[in-house]
Amino acid sequence: MVCRVCGKRYPVSPINFCTDDFGPLEVDYHYEEVQKVLRREVIARRSWNMWRYRELLPLDGEPTVGHAVGGTPLLKAQRLGEALGVRHLWIKNDAVNFPTLSFKDRVVAVALSKAREFGMATVGCASTGNLANSVAAQAAAAGLETFILVPADLERTKILGTAVYGAKVIGLKGTYDEVNRVCTQIALKYGWGFVNVNLRPFYAEGSKTMGYEIAEELGWRFPQHVVCPMAGGALIGKIYKAFSELHQLGLVETPLTTRMYGAQASGCNPISECVKSGRERHKPIRKPNTICKSLAIGDPADGYFAARLIRQTGGWAEDVTDEEIVDGMLLLARTEGIFAETAGGVTVAVARKLIEQGRIPRDEDIVLCITGNGLKTQDAVFDAIETPAVIAPTLAAFEEYAGLRAPAPSTVPALV
Amino acid sequence: MVCRVCGKRYPVSPINFCTDDFGPLEVDYHYEEVQKVLRREVIARRSWNMWRYRELLPLDGEPTVGHAVGGTPLLKAQRLGEALGVRHLWIKNDAVNFPTLSFKDRVVAVALSKAREFGMATVGCASTGNLANSVAAQAAAAGLETFILVPADLERTKILGTAVYGAKVIGLKGTYDEVNRVCTQIALKYGWGFVNVNLRPFYAEGSKTMGYEIAEELGWRFPQHVVCPMAGGALIGKIYKAFSELHQLGLVETPLTTRMYGAQASGCNPISECVKSGRERHKPIRKPNTICKSLAIGDPADGYFAARLIRQTGGWAEDVTDEEIVDGMLLLARTEGIFAETAGGVTVAVARKLIEQGRIPRDEDIVLCITGNGLKTQDAVFDAIETPAVIAPTLAAFEEYAGLRAPAPSTVPALV
Repeated sequence: MVCRVCGKRYPVSPINFCTDDFGPLEVDYHYEEVQKVLRREVIARRSWNMWRYRELLPLDGEPTVGHAVGGTPLLKAQRLGEALGVRHLWIKNDAVNFPTLSFKDRVVAVALSKAREFGMATVGCASTGNLANSVAAQAAAAGLETFILVPADLERTKILGTAVYGAKVIGLKGTYDEVNRVCTQIALKYGWGFVNVNLRPFYAEGSKTMGYEIAEELGWRFPQHVVCPMAGGALIGKIYKAFSELHQLGLVETPLTTRMYGAQASGCNPISECVKSGRERHKPIRKPNTICKSLAIGDPADGYFAARLIRQTGGWAEDVTDEEIVDGMLLLARTEGIFAETAGGVTVAVARKLIEQGRIPRDEDIVLCITGNGLKTQDAVFDAIETPAVIAPTLAAFEEYAGLRAPAPSTVPALV
Repeated sequence: MVCRVCGKRYPVSPINFCTDDFGPLEVDYHYEEVQKVLRREVIARRSWNMWRYRELLPLDGEPTVGHAVGGTPLLKAQRLGEALGVRHLWIKNDAVNFPTLSFKDRVVAVALSKAREFGMATVGCASTGNLANSVAAQAAAAGLETFILVPADLERTKILGTAVYGAKVIGLKGTYDEVNRVCTQIALKYGWGFVNVNLRPFYAEGSKTMGYEIAEELGWRFPQHVVCPMAGGALIGKIYKAFSELHQLGLVETPLTTRMYGAQASGCNPISECVKSGRERHKPIRKPNTICKSLAIGDPADGYFAARLIRQTGGWAEDVTDEEIVDGMLLLARTEGIFAETAGGVTVAVARKLIEQGRIPRDEDIVLCITGNGLKTQDAVFDAIETPAVIAPTLAAFEEYAGLRAPAPSTVPALV
């Protein structure tokens, strides 16, 4: 493990920051060894899930948690592409990830497999959303004891998708910052595995598999443009790291010239504001105010690295209003049949904005990263959905409703 | 196409019943031709989704709808197996199916691809649940106009997962029987594709892919026991048909001796009652009364065939109360990290009952079919979920809550 700020090296252990400068630690690999093993034909013979790239994940042995995670579809989005006026649009759809329908299943599978390697029997996290769902589900499957810490004012409906797995959900009468601090204290004192605290370096590596899959699904090549939602700012960096590794290992032979684009909600846009203003470091947002709760991190841990990456690759960042988010969700659902959570609406709406601005060209390969499922944020679109028509239960009433009183035009001969 | 009652043959067209005896029509195949093409190594080279078995699906050309459907995980359920006291338990998990998280995505992908081959531009169904979600989503992706007919008294929250895709949802002031009759009239008069009416013979074939995948994921062999939820009764028959075809084609060489078990809710148990009572034909249930709405079909179209199959294979059927359904959902979530809809609770609870009755032995391969996602039926478990503890936002408060006032036992050395 290596400090991302000063480069100091550490042995593999459950720590997440450099003791010299508190910089974040990252996992390093022996790429020469990996290169000897990991060839395209080896990967092709393995099951279609995230572990087909296991040599590039930070486990000593075989994974013991989340065997079936990943392997989500990369879809050619013809109809959405037409709506946005672009020719080669793709959607990487983690809204159907196993087991809890978000890209967090990838990071949690790595974190909990690593927790087991460390001999931990108790795990947890501070989260109210996708992360909590995934930790609870995968820890249940692994037989690990689980504590999920949340602010005490959270609605009960929001914890159902976590508590259903038997995780102990505890409400703390304080802010999210306070909740996070208690998690860190527990992790340090008891050596429990908090996936986004002391397991964070391993956890974050799981995100890379989204990048490996995109490249493999494109036929071992890189897209020219990737639009990625940003909360803490880690995912966008890990997808790019995945591409870099594939290039370094010779698995993709073309040069890596992919431009990375970050998407945020205007109500919590520290990273996109940083990119757009030309600032080197983001300004924290004190009071996030957006329907997209899953991206509402005011002071993103990887904000600096995300903004730097976006600039270095020649990409850009944008943010969108709540109204644009809902429009983005509906556009995705109605052109591609994909019901994404609010973060998906952010990604689609930001992509539209960047295309209209001319920042993303219309004739190159564009991948949109959809990271979670709309069934988890149904409230966001509830008011935007049309009220059903109500008619009598007869064919005549339906014909009147549908304007079919004259014989309908049809290319199929009627059967009677 | 061939009548399942009299065997009369029909050319391929959008009809679903025999004009002589009104028996249901089923698709037939030229198995000698299929056998020449469809070998294990050919299948292995194809993408991991339902279309890898495309020669056994009733399309003339390539699929044009639902390219990424299927390919869901078959999981070794170690912890649930221990809880049920069996050694080799597997879960086929269609709760993460693409795009709408149920096995209906399989049948709809075939039905709508066939609708396009018939030149239909308008499709629909009568459904309030998984089927409506899937038709709306996949028709949106295909650019087909969609009408979803539902009883007018349906809550608005129930149609969100359908209307979000832009389908026209129409409430009919009548019973489900009346809604279905209007669908049939529209399909006949206008030649529109109603997936479970005039497209039914094609639609139903999509279910077979769940069976192909189970056998392939087991390493091209059959499980000894399959427990399958029953609504209309088609799925259980199609899984068995899939096994029969694999055997006939030589893709699985061992004899087919799988026993099929049907699972229903006690509040709507026409098929399980038929099996248990030894009756040849089921008695319709007038007023279904169960939390498991997705299985609550009082007069199942394939009830006769399902009951006959269960008897012929040496299986059995059972039904479970609402309380047992909730227990089954929680047991599955807490042992395997899978949040299934109420039908999944039915399947788990029935499996437990059949194991306790000694009807399913404890040392053979058992597959449970999980057909939909728990996020769609959250109300069912809401009251069964524990209320979170509420504490002060301090380490000391957490330690008191968790009984950790003495130093915690841990196999991992504390870091400070």
